[in-house]
Amino acid sequence: MKTKKKIKLLLLTLLIVTLSSCNSKKEDSNNIQTETPIEAKDPLPSWEEGKTKESIKSYVVDVTTEGSPNFIPITDRIATFDNDGNLWSEQPAYFQLFFAISRIKALAPEHPEWKNKQPYKAVLENDMKSLMASGEKGLIEIVMTTHAGMTVEAFEKIVKDWLAKAKHPRFGKPYNELIYQPMLELLNYLRANDFKTYIVSGGGIEFMRPWVEEAYGIPKDQVVGSSIKTEFSLENGQAQIKRLPAIDFIDDKAGKPIGINKFIGKKPVFTSGNSDGDLQMMQYGDSNKHKSFQLYLHHTDAEREWAYDRDSHIGQLNKGLDYAIENGWTITDMKKDWKVIYPFQLNEAKN
Amino acid sequence: MKTKKKIKLLLLTLLIVTLSSCNSKKEDSNNIQTETPIEAKDPLPSWEEGKTKESIKSYVVDVTTEGSPNFIPITDRIATFDNDGNLWSEQPAYFQLFFAISRIKALAPEHPEWKNKQPYKAVLENDMKSLMASGEKGLIEIVMTTHAGMTVEAFEKIVKDWLAKAKHPRFGKPYNELIYQPMLELLNYLRANDFKTYIVSGGGIEFMRPWVEEAYGIPKDQVVGSSIKTEFSLENGQAQIKRLPAIDFIDDKAGKPIGINKFIGKKPVFTSGNSDGDLQMMQYGDSNKHKSFQLYLHHTDAEREWAYDRDSHIGQLNKGLDYAIENGWTITDMKKDWKVIYPFQLNEAKN
Repeated sequence: MKTKKKIKLLLLTLLIVTLSSCNSKKEDSNNIQTETPIEAKDPLPSWEEGKTKESIKSYVVDVTTEGSPNFIPITDRIATFDNDGNLWSEQPAYFQLFFAISRIKALAPEHPEWKNKQPYKAVLENDMKSLMASGEKGLIEIVMTTHAGMTVEAFEKIVKDWLAKAKHPRFGKPYNELIYQPMLELLNYLRANDFKTYIVSGGGIEFMRPWVEEAYGIPKDQVVGSSIKTEFSLENGQAQIKRLPAIDFIDDKAGKPIGINKFIGKKPVFTSGNSDGDLQMMQYGDSNKHKSFQLYLHHTDAEREWAYDRDSHIGQLNKGLDYAIENGWTITDMKKDWKVIYPFQLNEAKN
Repeated sequence: MKTKKKIKLLLLTLLIVTLSSCNSKKEDSNNIQTETPIEAKDPLPSWEEGKTKESIKSYVVDVTTEGSPNFIPITDRIATFDNDGNLWSEQPAYFQLFFAISRIKALAPEHPEWKNKQPYKAVLENDMKSLMASGEKGLIEIVMTTHAGMTVEAFEKIVKDWLAKAKHPRFGKPYNELIYQPMLELLNYLRANDFKTYIVSGGGIEFMRPWVEEAYGIPKDQVVGSSIKTEFSLENGQAQIKRLPAIDFIDDKAGKPIGINKFIGKKPVFTSGNSDGDLQMMQYGDSNKHKSFQLYLHHTDAEREWAYDRDSHIGQLNKGLDYAIENGWTITDMKKDWKVIYPFQLNEAKN
């Protein structure tokens, strides 16, 4: 579980949580703007004109034009997208980690013993030093406490309730509004050209499924992610699936092509990621017999979003950046290539 | 892996293999009849008029008619089908077992040591007694030898080559022609009413994927099945996924709802199976908040197919039959309800 990295993330998260006020006001965040305004002649209006946009468009035209030597049959038009830092932001820490910490705090009243029990005490007191001392074991305990022990339906409700209430510390918006407008346009553009779009994320599959259909237009069965084990039971004629505190599958690095093969059963032709955790998925796509397209998102915009790459503890892009340059993959420069970052900024956009 | 049962199956299989001649003639079996002739007014022409057909049709009309109190939104119209004994035959043994035995025989020339090594010796000599003596360990070794150690693409080719050559011992037809015509019509009927159809089978997911799209119109990413572990590697810039000799997931009994939740992320409203291994999947569908439909196929036709249920070593239907009767589920009586079994018999059908 990349635990050392996660502990560092948690450290960052806790810092943020300490600094930001806890917003518990209930607000309706259901009317997120998910419809992407597509101009008649430009399927990617939030992308600046230039090499990146041009290379995406010429690829799509090339492989979808009948008679082209690179034509790809519709059934093979598989496009896979990383989520954290690629379809939505991942700073100052993975949003799922904010969720876990929020859950510990919400559950604390039912667990008075946590006040004196690590690693819970550390989370509740925003005490990073003690939390780090609890190590990998402590972190896994926090994840399992917050993600397991309930039915699948109960967990879905918890995630939805959290999304409806929680606000991102920097932008003050619900987390599912921090999705990238240019990527929404790209998803729509690919689907309009008969690509089937999938999420392939290191994030929890059941943490994503409750909201990604509304946010990205990607249905639940086109989500591949990390998972914990589950258990089936029949109680009083009612079947249910309960989430267990044990890891089932980690969909990161080499796990991504393995997850793609398991869930989708086909090699993608279009892969999109932003970190070293996506490299193997993109290498897998790059080995497709069809002409493929690999798109790395480079976070270069400290002003409108965040700037990070080779030395970042979150979404590190180091080996992947080298590999992309060596192999001529397309790299989105967020600062240069995107006119706008989030849908809620559309009115402020310079266009 | 239901090993004791499988050993018994293997015994049966070997008997059959001994009795039937080994047909190695290469024949083109690609032009299988998969198009289902649907009459304008009858979406299920191979189903006899009666209670079973009527209950299927009235359910579909009820839940797809806008304004009906039982109306189900399109995104929730999930239909899951067992494969062995439900979409194609499973007698005198699971077809995947014929495949494994055929592979052992095909690989034998490269493994002269198998002549004196169990459990291979037993398979090669059709020696059931010794094979049974090799126990669970022996059987798993045969499965792993024939299903692991190659790339995903290589395995797909092996399965396709086998399907193109091998013939069913009783019918002398390629195995993928022993699919049920009435079930093809049912799949088409449901899809015409915006149900999304999935296979949820105890069979190997990568044993099914190479041929189910052509046979049933079900794409690769709508197949849930048992799997072995895989490994990603990058060799000379070429990414590949290799199949490993270790079990990853058994999609049977309680594994079926777990697999459905993992791969599909939604509870089915229409479930279809034929054995006790499907019971939990059907109980899971039965607990749907929407009006659901459970369809058990009862093998009652010894003349045209096979007759077996409570005491069968293959596709046992015992607990499931009791549960279905108690809970008012619909049971297809193959002999009474189906005008024809296989597509290749359509011309001979009494209709």
